[in-house]
Amino acid sequence: MLTYKAPVADINFLLKDVFGYYSHYQKFPEFEEATPDLVDAIFQECAKFCENELLPLYQSGDKEGCQFDNGVVTTPKGFKEAYQQYVEGGWQSLSHPVEHGGQGLPPSLGMVKSEMMGTANWSWAMYPGLSHGAMNTVETHGTKEQKELYLTRLTEGTWTGTMCLTEPQCGTDLGQVKTKAIPNGDGTYNITGTKIFISAGEHDLTENIIHIVLARLPDAPAGTRGISLFIVPKIQTDQQGNLGEANNVTCGSIEDKMGIKASATAVLNFDNAKGVLIGPENKGLECMFTFMNTARIGTALQGVCSAELAYQNSLIYAKERLSMRSLTGKKNPEQVADPIIVHPDVRKMLMTQKAISEGGRAMIYYAAKLVDEIEMAKTQEEREQADERLGFITPILKAFLTELGLESANHGLQIFGGHGYIKEWGMEQIVRDARISTLYEGTTGIQALDLLGRKILLTRGKSLNNFTKEVLLFCKDKSVLSKNPHKRQMNKFIWPLSKAVANWQQYSLRIALKAKKNRDIVGSASVDYLMYSGYIVMGYFWAQMAQSAYEKLATDVENRDFYRAKIKTAEFYFNRMLPRTKSHAKTMMEDPKTLMQLDQELLSFL
Amino acid sequence: MLTYKAPVADINFLLKDVFGYYSHYQKFPEFEEATPDLVDAIFQECAKFCENELLPLYQSGDKEGCQFDNGVVTTPKGFKEAYQQYVEGGWQSLSHPVEHGGQGLPPSLGMVKSEMMGTANWSWAMYPGLSHGAMNTVETHGTKEQKELYLTRLTEGTWTGTMCLTEPQCGTDLGQVKTKAIPNGDGTYNITGTKIFISAGEHDLTENIIHIVLARLPDAPAGTRGISLFIVPKIQTDQQGNLGEANNVTCGSIEDKMGIKASATAVLNFDNAKGVLIGPENKGLECMFTFMNTARIGTALQGVCSAELAYQNSLIYAKERLSMRSLTGKKNPEQVADPIIVHPDVRKMLMTQKAISEGGRAMIYYAAKLVDEIEMAKTQEEREQADERLGFITPILKAFLTELGLESANHGLQIFGGHGYIKEWGMEQIVRDARISTLYEGTTGIQALDLLGRKILLTRGKSLNNFTKEVLLFCKDKSVLSKNPHKRQMNKFIWPLSKAVANWQQYSLRIALKAKKNRDIVGSASVDYLMYSGYIVMGYFWAQMAQSAYEKLATDVENRDFYRAKIKTAEFYFNRMLPRTKSHAKTMMEDPKTLMQLDQELLSFL
Repeated sequence: MLTYKAPVADINFLLKDVFGYYSHYQKFPEFEEATPDLVDAIFQECAKFCENELLPLYQSGDKEGCQFDNGVVTTPKGFKEAYQQYVEGGWQSLSHPVEHGGQGLPPSLGMVKSEMMGTANWSWAMYPGLSHGAMNTVETHGTKEQKELYLTRLTEGTWTGTMCLTEPQCGTDLGQVKTKAIPNGDGTYNITGTKIFISAGEHDLTENIIHIVLARLPDAPAGTRGISLFIVPKIQTDQQGNLGEANNVTCGSIEDKMGIKASATAVLNFDNAKGVLIGPENKGLECMFTFMNTARIGTALQGVCSAELAYQNSLIYAKERLSMRSLTGKKNPEQVADPIIVHPDVRKMLMTQKAISEGGRAMIYYAAKLVDEIEMAKTQEEREQADERLGFITPILKAFLTELGLESANHGLQIFGGHGYIKEWGMEQIVRDARISTLYEGTTGIQALDLLGRKILLTRGKSLNNFTKEVLLFCKDKSVLSKNPHKRQMNKFIWPLSKAVANWQQYSLRIALKAKKNRDIVGSASVDYLMYSGYIVMGYFWAQMAQSAYEKLATDVENRDFYRAKIKTAEFYFNRMLPRTKSHAKTMMEDPKTLMQLDQELLSFL
Repeated sequence: MLTYKAPVADINFLLKDVFGYYSHYQKFPEFEEATPDLVDAIFQECAKFCENELLPLYQSGDKEGCQFDNGVVTTPKGFKEAYQQYVEGGWQSLSHPVEHGGQGLPPSLGMVKSEMMGTANWSWAMYPGLSHGAMNTVETHGTKEQKELYLTRLTEGTWTGTMCLTEPQCGTDLGQVKTKAIPNGDGTYNITGTKIFISAGEHDLTENIIHIVLARLPDAPAGTRGISLFIVPKIQTDQQGNLGEANNVTCGSIEDKMGIKASATAVLNFDNAKGVLIGPENKGLECMFTFMNTARIGTALQGVCSAELAYQNSLIYAKERLSMRSLTGKKNPEQVADPIIVHPDVRKMLMTQKAISEGGRAMIYYAAKLVDEIEMAKTQEEREQADERLGFITPILKAFLTELGLESANHGLQIFGGHGYIKEWGMEQIVRDARISTLYEGTTGIQALDLLGRKILLTRGKSLNNFTKEVLLFCKDKSVLSKNPHKRQMNKFIWPLSKAVANWQQYSLRIALKAKKNRDIVGSASVDYLMYSGYIVMGYFWAQMAQSAYEKLATDVENRDFYRAKIKTAEFYFNRMLPRTKSHAKTMMEDPKTLMQLDQELLSFL
């Protein structure tokens, strides 16, 4: 049976001490209610719900899975009740605008909520989670009527939403979408086609499901420029939302998957299903991608959730399980053996997990602040600036954190030894559940192309420069003694970080020059480049956390142990994880030749 | 539905061209039957059995799993029939001595057989696979009567065997074993205790199962020095092997696991079960560990099997799946998109898989040759020499190849994108099945301690020096132009390999010096050190394969493509995989302080 306690101390440290979230909230009158007291109360309630309601359904949900019977999907026992509690608690509306029934709290708080819920039960959290994409789409691109009809109910949580992109022949390459939309002349369209991998595409949690569907109008241009976006409800309604006839959307089956088994992944057959256009004709991809960054950060979060859940449980086990003696002498002489936490390699795995979950959380909260800023921007310029920063770090967060979340989950399993492989303990489930995260919302390879191709080369390094400027400013600031009484202690972080950033800029430039001669280097360097970048970005946040911890050590005597632990974890990170950049740096600079020179036909001789 | 074709061309290249297996066989009169013709015929039959009988049961076996009902275990449909075919084909006896019904072929050929069967269906292959440990134990430590009774039937395959080590409170730390053996005064013992994680511990494939059990005699010394080894049959028999009463060994349950679901992992309750001692009293661990190297190499093999199966299937998919266009221009203009194999990152994953499975196979076959030499050694000195070499590379093979096998399986899943996560395609099963391999037969951490603690520090570097001497001799030999017409082409491998070996020696020495001051460095450096060593060892075999390929290019015109592909894969390995040593080298040399300085209590604040 797995354990989960919401890491409220760490969350508060980030919000208050590292990122100054409360002064950030005060900048926006809309967020004036987000005071420390209210937020604390919310976190307490949220933690209780996650620990008491969601976590107990985590393993049982996996065991039962979703049941499919003739188009009807039944979620595992307890899922529906938990969802009702969630709706009654107003959790879905937490960070959505007041005018459609939301509570108007900042998106960043929604991210903290999602983290807690996602850690306690990722599969369950996907049902309300998927709604956010639909809500954002309707809010930004919908008409007044569409908002009144759909958005209010999605915000309440009485209906959920989906995003229907993938088809059997295409996932990443959406230009291949074949689903058709034929206008009926009355403002409605008949949608026909098959969508697959639709998370929360069918379930028994709510009375209706609102599908946001990519489809082609007649005579639309080929490829990505001919795709429009439609709202297609599972059950047709009148404008007041009264349920009418079922629409012609049927769930053909649900997938039997490696993990996230309690999350229904539907095949949806649209057979002249009634829908309405949302956003301009043929601009469906642009509309859908308005929220690509937030959706991807929502998936990056899974890396932190997997890492945290695995860490908490392997830590408990490592303190309890007795095996062998410490190489430096018995630590537990009255017992038959020492707890495995005394063994340096077990320690290394635990510290790696800790560094991933805390470092990853910092990266997510940094991004969440940018999401607040985008949402609340007063000017187009402000919005664009924040959006550019968010766009730059999004692929890094998505790919790097999900890869590291999977690593942490695997360390967790490994710490349990053979027991980690047995379902009962729950550790293998974390690995199976985490494994999807490097695939959906754009694979690691796709994120890496986005980073190197679009965010670096296409902007001629501008986004990178903006980010590195911020890091170097931090480094400069913290290494000036008059400004920073902790300068001497911070040097161990500031020096390697400054050096890493300088290398990052240089390597990026060199790759850009090489790419002019051979485009294949963009693909051959990309994943190494992304992971390389990720370790530096995480290093920046570890340095920030260390700085804040040094500052608090002096004033917050009660919690000194917390700050000391933070600093020592930062030391671990710089000592043991940042050096992983070395191999990535070496291989990303290599010529693509050794990848590409072998003819396809010569790849096997069977 | 997964595909598997036995890679006979690659197997023959290693046996004939790289390792000169046939002149090796001719050194031993016992192996004179192992001619190329006979071996080819065996491989053909074996490939047929694997491709036609075992592979089709791979996915269905996972889906069905083993059934447990009141102590009785039923294997998945088809498993029993396949096992009968296996026994009838004489496969179990292939490489076991003639005097007990074996065919007397070299152990190395048994390894090739195990590779093919293990790739087609690892779970199935575990049933006969586990018998080998019991057979080796009885053969070496058993009395004449024990051999006549047990060994002949195990060799036929009409009975199978197990190794019962692990108990709930201990796996690695066998000094904690509690199972008791009380002498009955008539040469038999009553064995009482609980053993867990017993692979093939209960099943319906054979009429009897012979358990080799670790247990303590009354008044035995505490810890590892008080453990003896017993033979405990599931069904009692007379000396002629006629089945009598059931013994008091019951299967309490089988584990519900992440993978290898078709392999029954039993909890066995011994309740005054009748057994006989094998080997000297209190020397059970020594006796059992006689075959630790071969057992571990048998597990290392799983890395190659996972890598190969994942590679073959992701290669097929990468050639078929159409998505996006090549960055260097359309490669498939008549179709809607290019096959994903044109994308450099997909290529990188495929080439990594290829390098792992072919490089790993070479490492296994190198070890298999040493196993032949140990078995056939004429003098104690010869045996010890081969044994020392095998002991040195065993932990490297076990940990490095299983970690890389898992990596390859994960690349396979990743290449399939979202489809990789769906059970139907089989790719996620390879990941789940592979995941056990870094745990059983000693985790990666345990292998790493064995390598650095025992094989490096305890021998004062002797084993390492013997191995590096061999590598440097190869390097020297291949870089002398008069000896090697391919010198110029080989330099690209020889130089980095020589340099890597020099570094390996230096780093090892430095770690040894550090370890004198702080024992914790053995544990903190060990896994990095093992992986670092693994990449160099695999580099050595890639260089050897490249050299053989250059030689064959000149003479074997028909198969030039094969040799060219081999050389280009070697180039890939040196270019993209060997540089992974850089990060491992950096972190393994760090002080253990950052791992150990944080008090256990400060590892979380919840």
